[in-house]
Amino acid sequence: MSTPSSWRERLYVIVFQADTVAGRRFDSILLLIILASLITVILDSIDEVHQGYAGLLAWIEWGFTAIFLAEYLTRLYCSPKPLRYAFSFYGLVDLLAIVPGIIAIYYSDAQYLLIIRVIRMLRIFRVLKLGPYLKQANYLMSALRGSKQKIIVFLVSVSTLVTVFGTLMYVVEGPEHGFTSIPKGIYWAIVTLTTVGFGDIVPKTPLGQVISSLVMITGYSIIAVPTGIFTAELANAMRGEQLQHACPTCHKGSHEQSAAFCSRCGNALFKKME
Amino acid sequence: MSTPSSWRERLYVIVFQADTVAGRRFDSILLLIILASLITVILDSIDEVHQGYAGLLAWIEWGFTAIFLAEYLTRLYCSPKPLRYAFSFYGLVDLLAIVPGIIAIYYSDAQYLLIIRVIRMLRIFRVLKLGPYLKQANYLMSALRGSKQKIIVFLVSVSTLVTVFGTLMYVVEGPEHGFTSIPKGIYWAIVTLTTVGFGDIVPKTPLGQVISSLVMITGYSIIAVPTGIFTAELANAMRGEQLQHACPTCHKGSHEQSAAFCSRCGNALFKKME
Amino acid sequence: MSTPSSWRERLYVIVFQADTVAGRRFDSILLLIILASLITVILDSIDEVHQGYAGLLAWIEWGFTAIFLAEYLTRLYCSPKPLRYAFSFYGLVDLLAIVPGIIAIYYSDAQYLLIIRVIRMLRIFRVLKLGPYLKQANYLMSALRGSKQKIIVFLVSVSTLVTVFGTLMYVVEGPEHGFTSIPKGIYWAIVTLTTVGFGDIVPKTPLGQVISSLVMITGYSIIAVPTGIFTAELANAMRGEQLQHACPTCHKGSHEQSAAFCSRCGNALFKKME
Amino acid sequence: MSTPSSWRERLYVIVFQADTVAGRRFDSILLLIILASLITVILDSIDEVHQGYAGLLAWIEWGFTAIFLAEYLTRLYCSPKPLRYAFSFYGLVDLLAIVPGIIAIYYSDAQYLLIIRVIRMLRIFRVLKLGPYLKQANYLMSALRGSKQKIIVFLVSVSTLVTVFGTLMYVVEGPEHGFTSIPKGIYWAIVTLTTVGFGDIVPKTPLGQVISSLVMITGYSIIAVPTGIFTAELANAMRGEQLQHACPTCHKGSHEQSAAFCSRCGNALFKKME
Repeated sequence: MSTPSSWRERLYVIVFQADTVAGRRFDSILLLIILASLITVILDSIDEVHQGYAGLLAWIEWGFTAIFLAEYLTRLYCSPKPLRYAFSFYGLVDLLAIVPGIIAIYYSDAQYLLIIRVIRMLRIFRVLKLGPYLKQANYLMSALRGSKQKIIVFLVSVSTLVTVFGTLMYVVEGPEHGFTSIPKGIYWAIVTLTTVGFGDIVPKTPLGQVISSLVMITGYSIIAVPTGIFTAELANAMRGEQLQHACPTCHKGSHEQSAAFCSRCGNALFKKME
Repeated sequence: MSTPSSWRERLYVIVFQADTVAGRRFDSILLLIILASLITVILDSIDEVHQGYAGLLAWIEWGFTAIFLAEYLTRLYCSPKPLRYAFSFYGLVDLLAIVPGIIAIYYSDAQYLLIIRVIRMLRIFRVLKLGPYLKQANYLMSALRGSKQKIIVFLVSVSTLVTVFGTLMYVVEGPEHGFTSIPKGIYWAIVTLTTVGFGDIVPKTPLGQVISSLVMITGYSIIAVPTGIFTAELANAMRGEQLQHACPTCHKGSHEQSAAFCSRCGNALFKKME
Repeated sequence: MSTPSSWRERLYVIVFQADTVAGRRFDSILLLIILASLITVILDSIDEVHQGYAGLLAWIEWGFTAIFLAEYLTRLYCSPKPLRYAFSFYGLVDLLAIVPGIIAIYYSDAQYLLIIRVIRMLRIFRVLKLGPYLKQANYLMSALRGSKQKIIVFLVSVSTLVTVFGTLMYVVEGPEHGFTSIPKGIYWAIVTLTTVGFGDIVPKTPLGQVISSLVMITGYSIIAVPTGIFTAELANAMRGEQLQHACPTCHKGSHEQSAAFCSRCGNALFKKME
Repeated sequence: MSTPSSWRERLYVIVFQADTVAGRRFDSILLLIILASLITVILDSIDEVHQGYAGLLAWIEWGFTAIFLAEYLTRLYCSPKPLRYAFSFYGLVDLLAIVPGIIAIYYSDAQYLLIIRVIRMLRIFRVLKLGPYLKQANYLMSALRGSKQKIIVFLVSVSTLVTVFGTLMYVVEGPEHGFTSIPKGIYWAIVTLTTVGFGDIVPKTPLGQVISSLVMITGYSIIAVPTGIFTAELANAMRGEQLQHACPTCHKGSHEQSAAFCSRCGNALFKKME
């Protein structure tokens, strides 16, 4: 917004912000590189590809690590508060994007590095900070935040349900039908209550099938609860563009964004200082 | 709220209420103990753990029973109306938390005691009575209560659907494809209508697959019904629907949210300052 | 409501209406008999029960047929317009409740009669006509009716989707992976789009799995459509207790049930004839 | 709308529009032909039917191709701007309806033509342009359009989730339990998150089952998000949000639904008759 005075400030605007043409182009290129590095990781995990092109893919991965390293150093250099950036959420994700490449020098075939290499993907959300998406994401986030306590109550109830039903099925069906322990029963109850229904463990006894039917109908019905909570909150958040200010006369609480007078009683919302 | 005069009353405030620091700490500790006792039960059901640590886990279980016994006696002692507490819902759940430990002295390996030991978990909801959660749970409960009759109509319709479809599939597919009886058919219809889809019983004949498709599309569509009911009720419960303001002329007490004039006498509800 | 003058009219009030004590008791007893006859049918389909008690259950079934016959004749007798009753929806369902018992005299072991015997269950909805349930069912029905056209648009779109995806999978996966014909492919697409997922037919080729992922994400997302339609209509239907009358001055369309003046402009809603 | 002066214009009204009797009849007949051609394709894919009636079905298909060709030429002839029609969406779909018949002369048994033959089905939506359906479809489309950005944010989040979870499961479960590559893991994550749950790949290790439980509960909960988005938007689209009435004093044109006073100048929007 303000004219950048030095080269470093100009770089900051390009690298960290998205409201200039150059900044948007930088974000687009970064997005493509992140996606390309992700596809490399995914392809490398396919056995046939790995056997044929392991060497090539390792070189490409090295290239991406170099690019991400350069990007990380640039960000550190042009950030006005480098330390604060380094320990921010995105700063750590940016650092994580380089780490696997470097560790891989010492330990080859480190399977668990894969996860870190995929977590790079979180950097995509940076790019979504662009214009209208940010506003929409804020709606969603504020709806989620507004319904946090309701959702905790819901999750505690669901946890209780799956524990009780899982134990019940463990007692009723027993190890001979796949319910070898209570955790297995709870796993089955989650699979059933969420209506996923893998079918790897299924009730065999009539009583077990009756209990299952109960779990399924419960799961089918209570999905209404998170949906209802979220919908009501989201409708609130979307309406919430309104001015939150109680009218001093009739106490109507929300008004049009630019209202000067209350639309119910016609009195001035704000006192005019003469 | 009132200053507790005696030791017993002070105990009551700590044990039963959650608006003092001591009361909240008591609840937190109780929550941890309940969760720990639950984990003991769950671990004990895993075969490898049971074979290695059965003795240790039995001792731990004994410890929990002792703690819960002490807690129950304390509650009985400090409750102003001990009998009323003893026969309240939570009083019975508290009692149930002790019973399995005591029965286990006479009957060892009693599988069915497991369920009672897990039902202890219901005591977690005590702790959720804390502050803001109570209000949110009330919203959810009042939305559920408001939609009770609609939900009964819905459940009766669903029961009819699964019975009719279950019988139809029993007749069409027959025992050779797993539909060995009408109850089995109803079980399959519930599995399918709720979109769980275990896959343990599946239609094999073309006609059976056509009927299945009908059941699935029905189940996929009517999930909208409980969701719609609950969402509409919850939105109602969250909005304080009506304006509570007595009309200065005719004293009608509640009006449409945004009324400027009384709908009974037509006079302005609020004075306009000129 | 009016005092019944003759025995026949008194019978009519008991048998057809639910606002007297006797009428409600009649409905309750009928409900129990219907459920009992349903349980008989269901039990009879279980092989072990059938082999042991086939004779007994046949006698019980005879008893129910006799009761339903008596009830049907009573309804015909006391109905003011017997023919109109006989050809009404419930009249036909009542008749269907007797038919299987009579047909079974000539054709024993007629499997398809089972379905008719289960359709008796529809008579349960008679009893739901009781008091508050009727009003709630009306809300649900009016919400469904209001969204009929939207739901047809939705179902046509879903049909197109499953046909196109089913054909695509038939071409891509082919008969060797279970997709033996387009109808089979459509069946699979319905199983997948509705998120049922039996797992009897699953994609094996990478391209098939990519298409499946598309179908699943589509199915997961568009469930929002019937839910959204129904919720919006139901919220409308529940608000719809309001008076639908445009204010002659400001054209506000809906008012409180008992409004005499418009709450927006304060003018009389109806002209007073002097 | 205007009275068609020539034969060609009259034809245009019949073929392209649906507000005359002849136009509606034309659409109905077209709908039947499209459905019949679709059923031919579907029947032909069933092995038993194909072996018995391949010749007959090929002739019928020829007939349909001839009809669609005639229709396409008619549309081209009577369209006021033939080129614009030819390159419009429906123009291309109409062309696609003829192509497979013609290609089939040179290449027989071309499996991939099947898809084009099924895409004909899209022409059904032409007929849905009829009267009330158009308006309802517009509601749905405007709700979808209004929520486009929110849905993109949602889909990006879901994509990230399934990629991270898919990789996690590939690392945790490994190829010996069916998770042979990251794409396979992502496929499994989609199957699970969308609550489809085929059961072709299931977690076997305890850690894998814990992660699965997380995925399932996430999938079960976040289905609330698209539903909430769509419901809120649809409710918006169905409500005609604002009052369109120019303030008599300051001429502000749109106000809150229930405004009695202008929120800009505070004067009454409607005159009160005394």
